[in-house]
Amino acid sequence: MISEAMYELGSKRSTIRELFEYGKKRAAIVGKENVFDFSIGNPTVPAPACVKESILEILETEESSAIHGYTSAQGDLEVRKGLAEYLNKTYGLNVSADNFYMTCGAAASLCISIKALVESSEDEFIAIAPFFPEYRVFTEGNGGKLVVVAPDLASFQVNFEGLEAAINAHTKAVIINSPNNPSGVIYTEETIIKISDLLKRKSEEYGHPIILISDEPYREIAYDHTKVPYITKYYDNTIVCYSYSKSLSLPGDRIGYILVPDEVAESKKLYAAICGAARVLGFVCAPSLFQKVILKCMGQTSDMDVYKANRDLLYNKLTELGFECVHPDGAFYLFVKAMEEDAVAFCEKAKAYDLLLVAGDDFGCPGYVRISYCVDQSMLERSFTAFKKLADEYQNI
Amino acid sequence: MISEAMYELGSKRSTIRELFEYGKKRAAIVGKENVFDFSIGNPTVPAPACVKESILEILETEESSAIHGYTSAQGDLEVRKGLAEYLNKTYGLNVSADNFYMTCGAAASLCISIKALVESSEDEFIAIAPFFPEYRVFTEGNGGKLVVVAPDLASFQVNFEGLEAAINAHTKAVIINSPNNPSGVIYTEETIIKISDLLKRKSEEYGHPIILISDEPYREIAYDHTKVPYITKYYDNTIVCYSYSKSLSLPGDRIGYILVPDEVAESKKLYAAICGAARVLGFVCAPSLFQKVILKCMGQTSDMDVYKANRDLLYNKLTELGFECVHPDGAFYLFVKAMEEDAVAFCEKAKAYDLLLVAGDDFGCPGYVRISYCVDQSMLERSFTAFKKLADEYQNI
Repeated sequence: MISEAMYELGSKRSTIRELFEYGKKRAAIVGKENVFDFSIGNPTVPAPACVKESILEILETEESSAIHGYTSAQGDLEVRKGLAEYLNKTYGLNVSADNFYMTCGAAASLCISIKALVESSEDEFIAIAPFFPEYRVFTEGNGGKLVVVAPDLASFQVNFEGLEAAINAHTKAVIINSPNNPSGVIYTEETIIKISDLLKRKSEEYGHPIILISDEPYREIAYDHTKVPYITKYYDNTIVCYSYSKSLSLPGDRIGYILVPDEVAESKKLYAAICGAARVLGFVCAPSLFQKVILKCMGQTSDMDVYKANRDLLYNKLTELGFECVHPDGAFYLFVKAMEEDAVAFCEKAKAYDLLLVAGDDFGCPGYVRISYCVDQSMLERSFTAFKKLADEYQNI
Repeated sequence: MISEAMYELGSKRSTIRELFEYGKKRAAIVGKENVFDFSIGNPTVPAPACVKESILEILETEESSAIHGYTSAQGDLEVRKGLAEYLNKTYGLNVSADNFYMTCGAAASLCISIKALVESSEDEFIAIAPFFPEYRVFTEGNGGKLVVVAPDLASFQVNFEGLEAAINAHTKAVIINSPNNPSGVIYTEETIIKISDLLKRKSEEYGHPIILISDEPYREIAYDHTKVPYITKYYDNTIVCYSYSKSLSLPGDRIGYILVPDEVAESKKLYAAICGAARVLGFVCAPSLFQKVILKCMGQTSDMDVYKANRDLLYNKLTELGFECVHPDGAFYLFVKAMEEDAVAFCEKAKAYDLLLVAGDDFGCPGYVRISYCVDQSMLERSFTAFKKLADEYQNI
């Protein structure tokens, strides 16, 4: 009577959620201050002041039906105009309001894009490990196949041999995510150019454009002035899936967009298919009040220095303790090599010290663990004793 | 390269949207005050004061991460507790927080429910005409078939012969919508009992439960103290898809829920499948701030007297002008018999007087037109001259 596939997806919690729930139970036993929960990527830095100010101003100056009414399905025209203007100014693009489709966040952006592209169950979407595990759910749930490219363990950029081998006549799109969850790595301009060249060559070889889906909720979390190349400038067939969850610390309010530049092959048709897919998935329109909020907060972000301070503290300390860490240039994750081959077993040992880390297996990268450092700095500092005990346990073997 | 099905859905505007856009163009030519746009069901009554007050209070008293952070996928526990308490008190139910899944509005509730139920492309969902046209999109887009039962033109309750004939071994669910869009009719208790008896008998006959999906965004818009029976009390296998779009005039903020009572067969499994379906469709969680708002506004509504005044004015006037109107006990639509067989042709004639009416064909009810009266009363009054001219045109034939 009930879809078994949906039941499976709904009844099995993700590893991350499992850990998070375990942490809450454990805190009730040993005290919250003694549990070091690095499992979840929930922004801890408050939304910038402009968010509250914008909401107050909108409530004071606009009519109820303008604030709370339906916008067009594509999103409020003024908001899309503002977005185009901001991106043109910031990245030297040449986009207009008509290139944007406002969504309920990046998950919605990805699902809608995939649904708009899938023509048959043989269609393939490529994820480059390490990758956000929900890509599998979004792809398979909307009728496509996910193909995973093994990680480049030397640099955590792209394993180009693997990527080239993964592309075939069924390839619809390649999904990239930079700054990356879980590695924190930012793809260099060189990497982007190489991806672009490869996809151009392969599109020609197979006689159809391969879409590059750039999932970029972490674009604004980049440290030490590391450049995050704007992908549409390098490869024409790029669509951008964006979310304000991290940049404005608004994950619960569900606001983001899809950008389909004119340069994409059959861009008008793809945009129309995105409208159709959003309709089929039940989205109607992106939240109206928060569309207005992001327009007023254009270009602002939460205080990213907090994450940077955590990154420095954690990276330096763990390296000092003998952990092999991937240096994160962005996002709020540290990717660390497990001290034994089996990262799941390593995470179990960490758990004994109430260190809650996520094994890289779900990210397509066994042997590593993800540490989400969007946490209070005091918790971070308290956790170092536990990390030391964990490292000692391995050094004593 | 692009899904043709999604392209079709996205490039063809719905008849209603077409008309709405036409109205805006026409207003630019003849003046806004001379166009009588009855096309769209966008609430015109402001949100009640509690909405603004709640937002201000939440912004003043809660932390950013509590206001804007992810809630659990099912929705904030306190919100779901409050909902259960309110419905138990108001309708004498016996539900708890665990029976609710918070969503981005009724469209999301319906898509998620359908996705959770569909096992094969042969699965059928029944809509009883007249019905909301997006049911077809939601059903077919999520892998099922929509089967339409012809209307009962005598009372606009349910054509039971047609419903019984439509049910077969493939029937997954029947979707009902009362108060109804587009007829404004409220299903009587007698109707609900007859639906319940029929579905019990048919579930037994085919050896599987047939789910009753009650789509009720208009529950609170009921005039003259007409009772809107609470469906779960009559038929165990009922799930409720609710939205605050109309009751609190918050259509753009996308907030609603799915209620899966314990009495539903395999209710825990269905609830899990709903969690899975929401994940696959990309919802993550319902908007967090507005979850908190609806908790604070529990039991309150926009001023429904405005809609009642419009209903009385419009129904009385059009009846007086010789139109055959279905008497609306709820919602904000008047369903009127076209003055010729072809309702589309009738709507074209109305357009000549700048009266924008929607033909019933898309609602599965040819020969009728829908007049959405969630409009300014002054526009309503100005429109009567045009309605008179339209009626006269037919009387002079």
